[in-house]
Amino acid sequence: MNANIKWLREKMKMLDLEGMIISNPNNIRYLTGIIAEGILLITRKENIYLTDARYIEEVNSTLTIDDEIIVHEFKDFTTDEYENFFLFCENVGFEENYMTYAQYKECIRRYKINNMQETEGIIEKQRMIKDEEEIAKITRACEITDNCFEHICQWIKIGQTEKEIALEIQRYFQLHGAEDLAFPTIVASGKNSSKPHAMPTDKKIELGDVITIDFGCKYEGYCSDMTRTVFAGYIPEKIREVYDLVLHNQKETQMAMKDGANAKVLTKLVKNDFELHGYDLIHALGHGLGLDIHEYPFISNQDFYLKENMVVTNEPGIYIPENFGVRIEDTVLISKNGCINLTKSDKNYIIVDKVQK
Amino acid sequence: MNANIKWLREKMKMLDLEGMIISNPNNIRYLTGIIAEGILLITRKENIYLTDARYIEEVNSTLTIDDEIIVHEFKDFTTDEYENFFLFCENVGFEENYMTYAQYKECIRRYKINNMQETEGIIEKQRMIKDEEEIAKITRACEITDNCFEHICQWIKIGQTEKEIALEIQRYFQLHGAEDLAFPTIVASGKNSSKPHAMPTDKKIELGDVITIDFGCKYEGYCSDMTRTVFAGYIPEKIREVYDLVLHNQKETQMAMKDGANAKVLTKLVKNDFELHGYDLIHALGHGLGLDIHEYPFISNQDFYLKENMVVTNEPGIYIPENFGVRIEDTVLISKNGCINLTKSDKNYIIVDKVQK
Repeated sequence: MNANIKWLREKMKMLDLEGMIISNPNNIRYLTGIIAEGILLITRKENIYLTDARYIEEVNSTLTIDDEIIVHEFKDFTTDEYENFFLFCENVGFEENYMTYAQYKECIRRYKINNMQETEGIIEKQRMIKDEEEIAKITRACEITDNCFEHICQWIKIGQTEKEIALEIQRYFQLHGAEDLAFPTIVASGKNSSKPHAMPTDKKIELGDVITIDFGCKYEGYCSDMTRTVFAGYIPEKIREVYDLVLHNQKETQMAMKDGANAKVLTKLVKNDFELHGYDLIHALGHGLGLDIHEYPFISNQDFYLKENMVVTNEPGIYIPENFGVRIEDTVLISKNGCINLTKSDKNYIIVDKVQK
Repeated sequence: MNANIKWLREKMKMLDLEGMIISNPNNIRYLTGIIAEGILLITRKENIYLTDARYIEEVNSTLTIDDEIIVHEFKDFTTDEYENFFLFCENVGFEENYMTYAQYKECIRRYKINNMQETEGIIEKQRMIKDEEEIAKITRACEITDNCFEHICQWIKIGQTEKEIALEIQRYFQLHGAEDLAFPTIVASGKNSSKPHAMPTDKKIELGDVITIDFGCKYEGYCSDMTRTVFAGYIPEKIREVYDLVLHNQKETQMAMKDGANAKVLTKLVKNDFELHGYDLIHALGHGLGLDIHEYPFISNQDFYLKENMVVTNEPGIYIPENFGVRIEDTVLISKNGCINLTKSDKNYIIVDKVQK
């Protein structure tokens, strides 16, 4: 049995859970390596993965005998056999955020469970601390992202649309070993950059635009996340000032992020400095990432202490409505005495399709 | 108030529901036109849409005064005000398949509801019958899909990878008025075509491969869905026979699909003919589509009668494990006396990158 499942079985003992139903696909992947549609049942006797015919071959090729996970098709069991899985289990844990009400009722009916107990993200919280293998995968995703950024800076020309640039990023990832986008790429130019979550449009890049590019890929399931704000042709003076302020705070945060740093304090420091200059911090300063692009911890107004081997983003941004926005973001690994940038692309002024003089 | 919300309020009366909480985003879009993250509350007095600050501007620009929908931010309300929404409502409907158990409990807590009642897809079932405007949007999505297919048949060359072809389809859609893919494009060549849901790989197209291309786009929220199986260079004899059998059945189904046709019978006819030839029909013969790529009705083993103005797919397929597969699919509109193909691409043998003699 692998270390993650052993950990979970221990945790269940502490919580007086005799069984657990795991339905969050990324939690199942974390515990077992399985990438499929199905559910994982932890009973007092066994670890059982239930899926349908489409996935049986794939799942069996993922697992080894050491995993001690029994794989079945849903349809293999009679009504009686379903009711036996959790026989004599008083409390069975479930993931209240990853089960619809209809599925919840179906579980009670099918397994005849006395007491379904909410588990409040115990596995998600465990996933905050990354092991060596997970860090290696995130590091690789970040390298591909850095390489993609180098390519795209050479590639962008005034007159291209935001959508064309987003598609070129996807094409690059696809041809250079990424298995997927980590999230829909943001390419937001000129006025559009004033919306933190703008989706790429048919707007063409114009001379003097800022372009916010927020993108990342997946490598063996693990995400990267980076934002750079670049300039088309030249740097307008009003934007330079904001850029400098954002970059200063991004670097200050980078200096302060380490084991034991308080997320609320980090956020407050940036917010105060922005406010001192007449701006505001309107979104979280950062978030954890791993199998999910957004996962625990969140670096915002909650008291929370960073720990060694968490992987989080550092992404201050300033947005001036109907005008422009600047965000600079790295993926970083928290260590004992500081943090290590996993995305390493240049953060000095970057001018794409520079005006020739 | 628009016709869809009026219909829902009538339906609620029939079901003795004094209120309803709608959380399925496509049901909200269907009822209100709103594209955002939020929930729709139907109370005895009002229609209320609750969202957060990011969407307020967008939502207000979508609605007119005639919609009679009041828009608020979640944070606008005090605990007391939340409890007043459903005051004196004995039964409040909710969507048990679009609410997690955690959200369900939060609803009871926040709104102090006595009896939350499952509504068993009433809105999804109403969405089966498309109105004129919906049909026009699906028709446009299908036209773009046909044009894309014409382009891609010229574009494909032996030696390209499945992923490259899938990306070119996406590029075409993006540059020709589609707002998105309707679902991840399937490009499955050679052996890969034997898996109905194969994802594009780095496998290169080889001379003599079949290539199954299953793709569609969205136009103003509405989906198209089409599959063609084409040949790289020439037509291998063993594949030709299977192609002919699939095409024959696809055309027979097309002839039989009309108002009053029974989905189970349609399916059985194809299954019988496949079995007569030593093959099997291993997936549903078709499915409804609209705002969702898969929605009611499903054309499989369930007794169900097609009705005028339903839009469904017609997609028989044969898959020979470790060998090859053939699927041919159109999106069709059910009418009184027959069905109308909304995707119109050629279904005769299509040879891409034809061998020059």
